[in-house]
Amino acid sequence: MHPRSILRFISIIILYLAIALSVPTIVSVIYHENSVFPLLYSMLITLGVGLILYFLTQTHKELILSHRDGILVVTFGWITAGLIGALPFMLSGYIPDFTNAYFESLSGFTTTGASILNNIESLPKGILLWRSIIQWLGGMGIIVLSIAILPYLGVGGMQLYKAEIPSPVIEKLKPRISDTAKTLWKVYLLITVIEVILLFVGGMPLFDSICHAFCTMPTGGFSPKNLSIAHYGNPYLECVIMVFMLLAGINFSLHYRFLKGESKIYVIDPECRIFLLIVISFILIIVIDLYKEVYGSLLESIRFGSFQVCSIITTTGFVTADFDKWPSLSRKILLICMILGAMAGSTGGGIKTIRLILIAKHSYKEIFQLIHPRAILRVKLGGKSIPPEVLSSIWGFVFLYLGILVLASLIMAHLGMDMISAFSSVCACIFNIGPGLGTVGPTQNYLSIPLIGKWVLIFCMLLGRLEIYTVLVLLVPEFWKK
Amino acid sequence: MHPRSILRFISIIILYLAIALSVPTIVSVIYHENSVFPLLYSMLITLGVGLILYFLTQTHKELILSHRDGILVVTFGWITAGLIGALPFMLSGYIPDFTNAYFESLSGFTTTGASILNNIESLPKGILLWRSIIQWLGGMGIIVLSIAILPYLGVGGMQLYKAEIPSPVIEKLKPRISDTAKTLWKVYLLITVIEVILLFVGGMPLFDSICHAFCTMPTGGFSPKNLSIAHYGNPYLECVIMVFMLLAGINFSLHYRFLKGESKIYVIDPECRIFLLIVISFILIIVIDLYKEVYGSLLESIRFGSFQVCSIITTTGFVTADFDKWPSLSRKILLICMILGAMAGSTGGGIKTIRLILIAKHSYKEIFQLIHPRAILRVKLGGKSIPPEVLSSIWGFVFLYLGILVLASLIMAHLGMDMISAFSSVCACIFNIGPGLGTVGPTQNYLSIPLIGKWVLIFCMLLGRLEIYTVLVLLVPEFWKK
Repeated sequence: MHPRSILRFISIIILYLAIALSVPTIVSVIYHENSVFPLLYSMLITLGVGLILYFLTQTHKELILSHRDGILVVTFGWITAGLIGALPFMLSGYIPDFTNAYFESLSGFTTTGASILNNIESLPKGILLWRSIIQWLGGMGIIVLSIAILPYLGVGGMQLYKAEIPSPVIEKLKPRISDTAKTLWKVYLLITVIEVILLFVGGMPLFDSICHAFCTMPTGGFSPKNLSIAHYGNPYLECVIMVFMLLAGINFSLHYRFLKGESKIYVIDPECRIFLLIVISFILIIVIDLYKEVYGSLLESIRFGSFQVCSIITTTGFVTADFDKWPSLSRKILLICMILGAMAGSTGGGIKTIRLILIAKHSYKEIFQLIHPRAILRVKLGGKSIPPEVLSSIWGFVFLYLGILVLASLIMAHLGMDMISAFSSVCACIFNIGPGLGTVGPTQNYLSIPLIGKWVLIFCMLLGRLEIYTVLVLLVPEFWKK
Repeated sequence: MHPRSILRFISIIILYLAIALSVPTIVSVIYHENSVFPLLYSMLITLGVGLILYFLTQTHKELILSHRDGILVVTFGWITAGLIGALPFMLSGYIPDFTNAYFESLSGFTTTGASILNNIESLPKGILLWRSIIQWLGGMGIIVLSIAILPYLGVGGMQLYKAEIPSPVIEKLKPRISDTAKTLWKVYLLITVIEVILLFVGGMPLFDSICHAFCTMPTGGFSPKNLSIAHYGNPYLECVIMVFMLLAGINFSLHYRFLKGESKIYVIDPECRIFLLIVISFILIIVIDLYKEVYGSLLESIRFGSFQVCSIITTTGFVTADFDKWPSLSRKILLICMILGAMAGSTGGGIKTIRLILIAKHSYKEIFQLIHPRAILRVKLGGKSIPPEVLSSIWGFVFLYLGILVLASLIMAHLGMDMISAFSSVCACIFNIGPGLGTVGPTQNYLSIPLIGKWVLIFCMLLGRLEIYTVLVLLVPEFWKK
């Protein structure tokens, strides 16, 4: 373990956050808001802490990051970011309580989008923008994590993605990791800018357009409006956001390859094909259910049904209809969307399409094995044979996900929540969606949840976002042995 | 495939059922009930069909059963038994509708215990006894299946149990399978008789004692009383039934070894130890929850809490309290009990303790793998290394279980059931428990479920009881190829 290298990396994250804090500070100055000084102080504190840590960890020796150091940087990086993100909320007095402020902040950085705010619109623009920037930065973190770091740690079958894009070995402080990251960040930025323009053209105010685009691309789901996207009641805007949520739910290296000229890549890639197929099937089921039971108008059913499926399966969490009042079949489908989640390598959460595909193929293989007991069968994807250790890793991952889901929802039930609210609140946090069902439904928020419950959910957000292993491994004593 | 051998085996099952039908017929004669002739006709029809099939399949050549034939005998054996079991219900006019009669009958043979009867006590003793005999015979079938057949088919990790007891290879018509079966049936019979005596001594009428013991040992849960065990309000009887439910939830080969003098076997066996540990932990949680939220008396909380945990985790389904009215934490624990189920090699259903243990160990191993990426780690149980193909088989099994659970509960939701009722009705049937929550709760029954829903649940009972693969494999075209 190399504590100096770990802290050095974290100091760099802190310094970047200080720079990021300057943006909402300037916005606050422009709008003459009372949040100028809280934001400024937050920036100065962050800058100070970052600089101290940076100089304390300076050394002439080359900094080395091992396998374990990588895990520590990732986990503590996110925890630290959550602390810094909470500063403006607390200093401005809009969320004075530390638990609530940290909940809101980590919900942002993990791109969950669960909020404890009752009246979002009462917040000054500076703070609202910071809330969106948090999510956007969280999304950037996820892209590096899922495409450049997790495949090399071998977490939950992610080793499959090793060859996707020329990628680094995280052995040194300045590795090629930054090349991959920079390429994908450019794609991320490009798509965000296009979304801002399309929303603005459709009549959304520029500030709102920026905020919403900043929360769409990381599949975050924070909105500066109390009613989320339902505020505008504008089918064009809903359509734009729906398309960009889907884009955000697709592996970013596919976008990169699309931009490089591989125009059919979305249909060729087996994971993407099945992801889109699942989305379309779920939309169909919900639209029929809504048409029969709720709206009576096919157009309305398509409009609200398709938006909500895209929002939940990509784990964004934007809302155009109170889906908690939808019939039981539709709500069940949305619950399944929460658990499945988007594609690996996207900014979305959940179990991820690739794992679902491999699990299903593996189960089907086992049926074949029963017919041919002596045959040696392999799971294949896109013509390639999947190594058993990848499958083994995925199974362990899925079980841990489900185990923690059950355990955490038992704690929430113990705190007095009804069964569906308890279960869906944990789903909404561990899979980084935001709104759940029942008391944490789309028209509700997380404010009323007891203190312990909030910390359980905070832990769930972190676990889910960092693909469980990365956090759980820190709790194993073996990890800390030399 | 050897159709003649398969039909021969099924004809033998039919003939045994004809013999079994003579018992309730005689009871009906003794009590001068109107069910004498319906039972007699059922017996004669069964006998006739059985004899015709028996003689049609007679041959001088030795009968051969292959791997696939074994699967066909098991699945079609259970389906046929369900048909014969339904005859007395229909002919007596107490359940005139075919779907309902088949639901009740297969719910018996699969030892599920889900009922469509509104007023059980209005039935004549002959029919009530038949209902119990069905479950008892179902339990006998399960013992052979899980200890003597599934390990050799390699279904869902059951190959682990190959060496438990000297066991046969199912290659010939008269194999050593019968030796294993006969040994365990003796144990089964012995424990049943002891339970009858203990219940009778405690003041339960002899007829009721026999019926309840016949439904305890197969973890079936049919009761001749509308209120199930709550009818007696007798803590001694509840205690006896609780102990025997637990015994029924333990691998029968452990009972055999216990009777052979291995007095500490229940504590030595790693699966049994963890099974009992889970039961005790769940009882503790529920007792505390009930004490705080419902009964206010510790004794009452222990009495009702422990009985219900034992009843549900062993998938018996006897009832002493309306647990659907319990607080959300207790209900969630019961839902988890439904899914976990009892030990492999018992008559209980569910995912089974051994699979849970291996899945958990496997997931823990994966965390270790992250710390030591290059190490070759193995999952061990009781000092023995578990082959990867066993784990692979278990994972496939568990995913299929969960996948079918989700799919079936979507169909139930589509039929208009609320989320919890839809989910728990499928749990209660696929894990062979009986009562669920909500509209299929302990004070309700399955009568009001729409026709399609009943057939979905019938399919689930069969799937769950035959460990899924055995049924699903028949739907794969490859199975039917030469």
